[in-house]
Amino acid sequence: MRFTKMHALGNNYIYVSTAETQLPSLDLAELARRVSDVRRGIGSDGLIVIQPSDVADVGMRIWNSDGSEAESCGNGLRCVAKYAYEHGLVDTGVFSIETKAGVVEARVHMDRHGRVPLVTIDMGQASFGSSVVPYTGVHRGDDVAVDIDGVPVWGTLVSVGNPHFVALVDRVDDEEVLRIGSRIESHPDFPERMNAEFVAVKSSTEIDFRVYERGSGVTYACGTGACASVAALARKGLVGSKVTVHLLGGDLDIELRDDGHILMTGEAVTVCEGDYFV
Amino acid sequence: MRFTKMHALGNNYIYVSTAETQLPSLDLAELARRVSDVRRGIGSDGLIVIQPSDVADVGMRIWNSDGSEAESCGNGLRCVAKYAYEHGLVDTGVFSIETKAGVVEARVHMDRHGRVPLVTIDMGQASFGSSVVPYTGVHRGDDVAVDIDGVPVWGTLVSVGNPHFVALVDRVDDEEVLRIGSRIESHPDFPERMNAEFVAVKSSTEIDFRVYERGSGVTYACGTGACASVAALARKGLVGSKVTVHLLGGDLDIELRDDGHILMTGEAVTVCEGDYFV
Repeated sequence: MRFTKMHALGNNYIYVSTAETQLPSLDLAELARRVSDVRRGIGSDGLIVIQPSDVADVGMRIWNSDGSEAESCGNGLRCVAKYAYEHGLVDTGVFSIETKAGVVEARVHMDRHGRVPLVTIDMGQASFGSSVVPYTGVHRGDDVAVDIDGVPVWGTLVSVGNPHFVALVDRVDDEEVLRIGSRIESHPDFPERMNAEFVAVKSSTEIDFRVYERGSGVTYACGTGACASVAALARKGLVGSKVTVHLLGGDLDIELRDDGHILMTGEAVTVCEGDYFV
Repeated sequence: MRFTKMHALGNNYIYVSTAETQLPSLDLAELARRVSDVRRGIGSDGLIVIQPSDVADVGMRIWNSDGSEAESCGNGLRCVAKYAYEHGLVDTGVFSIETKAGVVEARVHMDRHGRVPLVTIDMGQASFGSSVVPYTGVHRGDDVAVDIDGVPVWGTLVSVGNPHFVALVDRVDDEEVLRIGSRIESHPDFPERMNAEFVAVKSSTEIDFRVYERGSGVTYACGTGACASVAALARKGLVGSKVTVHLLGGDLDIELRDDGHILMTGEAVTVCEGDYFV
């Protein structure tokens, strides 16, 4: 089976295009587990299958390394866009990608060799407050406080398809993210659990960012979290409409368009390509 | 750079042959760190470079994932032998491989497609007792007891190039290996630290095996440890000259030849091959 391994901010998947190789006659959840296993497989966060779509220029499906299927992934989308353009699956630099969470628009940035080091994804619009995310606490409004051992921790509730709790801090502290983030993620006020972001404003165009992801813990990069955080800070007037977000795994550039759409730009990197022997 | 990823009992490396690709103009320790990184590289236990040798049919050098250079590796040797035969670097099924620890003899086992699922490596001879391994305790002889919280833990001292402490147990217990193995590995009686093996005899031809490797902790497979263990048990008359060793990562077949040489036979598996973009 032909494969390409790509990463975006360290979030790495094995990419397989049905236009270029035959998938093995194997359950795709099982294939995802096998290719992801670093000991006896290639080693990755999961498997992404690139396939034709009836409703978009190209389609994708994602399986995590444990075999569960994911709806979408901002880092994966950028790599799919790079792959689709460089492999001629699309013939323009702006095109649509179908995911299980819907259709998104991608724009590739080419270098002078015709390669794609950066990709912009339209991540849609953010919405705010206790009415748009699963929350059963007593506060109402955009900002709520959750009780951690008697201490209120304030944050903004944001949905960008998935739910986020964005806490403003003076300085991001990896110890604190692990300690407080895990408590927020599984807090009783959030019956479907929560993505917890910690952000520190360095200037109107630059923020530091850490995340405790729902179900995953501390991760190097969470595209939806970066979008949710900038949207929450801009709404408070703390940042402008173009912000560089410093994540543990690298940088993302977030732009808030006048129509409310959030454009996320970041790297997409090809690690290797070849044949995998199932 | 052309590469092949192979594993043997889950012990996995990126293999690069200087006869088939140009190495990047990069320090090889740095290359090993990069290809081993599962997030931004391919993902592996390290890098093995296959190269011509003046004193053997083929040569190899190994770097661990942290960039340190290793002397040799039984699992890696089997994969090098498979690679050398399948890629035509040698033209017979029995040949020699130069490592930093010396020259060893390999024999490949071919299937009907000319592929090599199994490889035998001549691991040399074992020697026994407190005079051949770094030991500063009070006992003398093949078997010594080390004090763990006032309880003596008995084991056989064996050298097969590197030092081993082989403890006979009724049943291998992963909890115990972690708890006692770590204490043996760094015990003051062993000034250069120690590989600690725990073995249970199931019959004269079969043993269960667990290892706490010096500097690595619990690992899935340790070829020298399996050889040392069978040699120690055979010397006590507890097993015969052909023994299947059940390791956490799979099986190894160990044969003690009349001249004292230990032949180790086990799998070598190609995972994938392709181009890595440095």
